Amino acid sequence: MRYLDPVIKIHDDVTVELVKHSASDGDVLWAARVSTAGEQSLEELHKDPERSKGLINYLMRDRHGSPFEHNSMTFFVHAPIFVFREFMRHRVWSYNEESGRYRELQPVFYVPGPERKLVQVGRPGKYEFVDGSPEQHRLVTETMLASYEHSYTAYQKMLEAGVAREVARAVLPVGLFSSMYATCNARALMHFLSLRTKDDRAAVPSFPQREIEMVAEKMEAIWAGLMPLTHAAFNANGRISP
Amino acid sequence: MRYLDPVIKIHDDVTVELVKHSASDGDVLWAARVSTAGEQSLEELHKDPERSKGLINYLMRDRHGSPFEHNSMTFFVHAPIFVFREFMRHRVWSYNEESGRYRELQPVFYVPGPERKLVQVGRPGKYEFVDGSPEQHRLVTETMLASYEHSYTAYQKMLEAGVAREVARAVLPVGLFSSMYATCNARALMHFLSLRTKDDRAAVPSFPQREIEMVAEKMEAIWAGLMPLTHAAFNANGRISP
Amino acid sequence: MRYLDPVIKIHDDVTVELVKHSASDGDVLWAARVSTAGEQSLEELHKDPERSKGLINYLMRDRHGSPFEHNSMTFFVHAPIFVFREFMRHRVWSYNEESGRYRELQPVFYVPGPERKLVQVGRPGKYEFVDGSPEQHRLVTETMLASYEHSYTAYQKMLEAGVAREVARAVLPVGLFSSMYATCNARALMHFLSLRTKDDRAAVPSFPQREIEMVAEKMEAIWAGLMPLTHAAFNANGRISP
Amino acid sequence: MRYLDPVIKIHDDVTVELVKHSASDGDVLWAARVSTAGEQSLEELHKDPERSKGLINYLMRDRHGSPFEHNSMTFFVHAPIFVFREFMRHRVWSYNEESGRYRELQPVFYVPGPERKLVQVGRPGKYEFVDGSPEQHRLVTETMLASYEHSYTAYQKMLEAGVAREVARAVLPVGLFSSMYATCNARALMHFLSLRTKDDRAAVPSFPQREIEMVAEKMEAIWAGLMPLTHAAFNANGRISP
Repeated sequence: MRYLDPVIKIHDDVTVELVKHSASDGDVLWAARVSTAGEQSLEELHKDPERSKGLINYLMRDRHGSPFEHNSMTFFVHAPIFVFREFMRHRVWSYNEESGRYRELQPVFYVPGPERKLVQVGRPGKYEFVDGSPEQHRLVTETMLASYEHSYTAYQKMLEAGVAREVARAVLPVGLFSSMYATCNARALMHFLSLRTKDDRAAVPSFPQREIEMVAEKMEAIWAGLMPLTHAAFNANGRISP
Repeated sequence: MRYLDPVIKIHDDVTVELVKHSASDGDVLWAARVSTAGEQSLEELHKDPERSKGLINYLMRDRHGSPFEHNSMTFFVHAPIFVFREFMRHRVWSYNEESGRYRELQPVFYVPGPERKLVQVGRPGKYEFVDGSPEQHRLVTETMLASYEHSYTAYQKMLEAGVAREVARAVLPVGLFSSMYATCNARALMHFLSLRTKDDRAAVPSFPQREIEMVAEKMEAIWAGLMPLTHAAFNANGRISP
Repeated sequence: MRYLDPVIKIHDDVTVELVKHSASDGDVLWAARVSTAGEQSLEELHKDPERSKGLINYLMRDRHGSPFEHNSMTFFVHAPIFVFREFMRHRVWSYNEESGRYRELQPVFYVPGPERKLVQVGRPGKYEFVDGSPEQHRLVTETMLASYEHSYTAYQKMLEAGVAREVARAVLPVGLFSSMYATCNARALMHFLSLRTKDDRAAVPSFPQREIEMVAEKMEAIWAGLMPLTHAAFNANGRISP
Repeated sequence: MRYLDPVIKIHDDVTVELVKHSASDGDVLWAARVSTAGEQSLEELHKDPERSKGLINYLMRDRHGSPFEHNSMTFFVHAPIFVFREFMRHRVWSYNEESGRYRELQPVFYVPGPERKLVQVGRPGKYEFVDGSPEQHRLVTETMLASYEHSYTAYQKMLEAGVAREVARAVLPVGLFSSMYATCNARALMHFLSLRTKDDRAAVPSFPQREIEMVAEKMEAIWAGLMPLTHAAFNANGRISP
């Protein structure tokens, strides 16, 4: 009977891949030119990288947000449900997630890696995280593994008995990995990054949970490659979404 | 040690309470009068319930959606995480949910009641649900209880060892109850109801998971009391959000 | 002095061009497969056009809207301000419009063509439009031309006197042509089309102003070329946005 | 014939009235308590104004935006069309505006008052406004009046000839006053204020057109009376929407 031996897979990291995109700094330039253009043509702008950089920086600084919306990036994300729960509060993005109603969910789970700070100190509004001891790391790994295995076995036991997937999944933990496609534009991505990364250049502090920050950092690295001038202007202006 | 004996609480139902509201059929009428008004004043309208009913019905039928937005309802919802996961895909609503980062989560869990159809038959796109056997109900109840208790014990064990709440919660299942305040206007509520209830009067079919439908039905009953003419027009026009 | 002789340009039509896109029926398929997939792979789907068509039709019929969001189309639109005023009520789209604060606006204006029905009959909720007489068409053309010229001359007179563009523009009419880039996904486009076209296949009636319908029709023709299966499913299911 | 003598009304100011509201600092407190609460109850908070103030300030500073959404304010706004054009780009608000399709629009127009700076100096990105001369003010007033009267006469001439309102309105200028109901929550209002007011306390600069700023200032004064702690925290934290 299959439910007696679930083959649990464990990750201490998340996956972010760029599935498709239509996004470049040029998309910001032509969108801005329709509204604010003077004498200079877009062709001239392209020949003059310093002016392109200056225009993008000016848009960011003065919070002209709309020129950053005419582009599109779709990411594949593989991460725990507790990360998706926070992610999907961002309303402007588009999401399609693996469905536990239509699919039997696979036994892939999150366990914190050795770098993950495990202990929270301070009080509400002033929390900080510090390293856990080796004992704490060992306990977390062992306890999570045993709990995940127990939960997944219960899930399979109910499926075997003919219970609907959408009912049986109730026992699955929020540490289970799920998959989604997430589509955004650069403005929505900047808003996400401003709240879900902790960065010294930020004018306004953020205190994201480490696991969603791991997703955000991977997205930022990809985005920086697609739109380097926009990314630089974001950093240069306090990492506030325009 | 507390983690050896979690006092598990079980619900087979959800809770929906109206926390506050500023919502009436009159709000639709005055909003509509600013744009479409002819000779008749709002005072006259109030004296003529048939015309009020007719105006609301006309707005609904011809999909003039904006007059249904100038009102506000805040609900307290207590339901499992897997319900909240679907709920929060509705972008127009406002949400504040109990945080597993700031609070130790309480051991309250969902187990399907005897009325819940447990078995899914058919194929994708044509699923139907049928009653489970008494044996299936018994197996679900027992398996879920054991699994929930095991998960919650693991959660407490990690908390006892000084592990941060946001880390330890990874083992908690999506059947755990959470709480939120959810605020919407009537247009957003109608969109929610059109997708999350199954109703013979609906012009377009929907196949919601039963547990979110339980939330939706309770909200609809409350809303019908606040805005009876709007609710009647919604039903009379195919339960499509205008 | 330039303001004595504005060179008025007149249009009785609107312009819609596809500037860039990343949109195909395939984008709907892979987005849907992540959530609802069974045994069949996307490669198999592509080899089996009938199943692709069936899947898209099923998503539309059962109102699974999110798979229609992972695509992007940017249009250039040149149309009167009164059209843009209605257009920009659609919130999900992204817009960048020519700015009357940063630019001197050009004297391009809308005058109804001979096909435009000029006369409204009936009462609120039951309006219909019928052809105008040749005299009415002549009067509209002459009156509009004279009025536009007078307004634009006043605009230029104030600019000549050193008045800021954002102040002087107050006299410019809503029949003035403006330009914008408008970016959307297929779901947002379908919602727009459902409200801004009048079509016999629509399950729910709409009564758009003819000029925004002209924009909508041109967009629909372009979109139908990019996503033919999605377009067909939209028509086959009552032209309701999923 | 009525169109020979329109009775033009002129305003150099805008009107903003609070139509209804369900908004107080307490709404922020209870919304926040569901997610972040510790030991202290809401009753205790109310008895301890300093803590209430501190909690709201902390939410604003750390950009916890959602607790500011569970409240509602509806304003009546009477202002020129060019102001409404900018206003309606704010997507989270709800709007119902007087319709030029259903109603004959009234001859009420905007002319800048003596305080309005008329002259723009500098270059794009560094514009500033300076006072106009008495001659410029006189020219603007006279030119606008004559142009408005000419436009409105043309409008009425077409209406008299039986032309539909939605066609005839094409000649009406963007300086025409329109009316709307606009509903928002405090978070959306703060975002609006951050972009549409110029204020020394703002961490990020904004350069709104004066006329929309006049609307924004009146809204801010009303809101400050309803939610004084939230307003103070907004000012104390750089007037950035959380």
